[in-house]
Amino acid sequence: MLKDIKFNKDGLVPAIAQDADNGEVLMLAYMNAEALRRTLESGEAWFWSRSRQELWHKGETSGSIITVREVWKDCDSDTILIRGKAAGPVCHTGNRTCFFQKMTKKDVED
Amino acid sequence: MLKDIKFNKDGLVPAIAQDADNGEVLMLAYMNAEALRRTLESGEAWFWSRSRQELWHKGETSGSIITVREVWKDCDSDTILIRGKAAGPVCHTGNRTCFFQKMTKKDVED
Repeated sequence: MLKDIKFNKDGLVPAIAQDADNGEVLMLAYMNAEALRRTLESGEAWFWSRSRQELWHKGETSGSIITVREVWKDCDSDTILIRGKAAGPVCHTGNRTCFFQKMTKKDVED
Repeated sequence: MLKDIKFNKDGLVPAIAQDADNGEVLMLAYMNAEALRRTLESGEAWFWSRSRQELWHKGETSGSIITVREVWKDCDSDTILIRGKAAGPVCHTGNRTCFFQKMTKKDVED
């Protein structure tokens, strides 16, 4: 079924990480086939770091490992959803989630 | 602040849509600047259809309009999170969410 996954021309799919208990969306990152394989086999979230161009075991440095409870793919198999628990703040800014900046109509008007 | 958004080389950002009440992740699609502008101004979700190469007022055909309560951007401004309510099943398959296919270790082994 990994063969079913539609990786983009860079060999990546976007992967959403969500807190399995409270539903909070924590981050979006990208996986290549190997990151997805490791995530499914290890039960911890792996991504592909586009900036560093290397496999990225989320939390290996920061300690904020994401323990995976469920992995889902979407209807057209080009997006992954991980539901799990992070051991600490997921965002490099120290925030619990990467989505801490709210946008409003004002963002359009300015 | 729209200028802050880091659109990719195709002029798009991934946008996650989430049910604002139960936290269910409904879909991931892509927005260009105009889709994001319309979403913020109208309070309904707009995307850019990559297959049709046109602005896409989600639900205009199916009826499953997504009424937006909150729009968030992530820490590095290259992903959008919409929290809102869909008027019907979001997925073109008729499912409530596009994420209805669970993956397991078996997907790696096969």
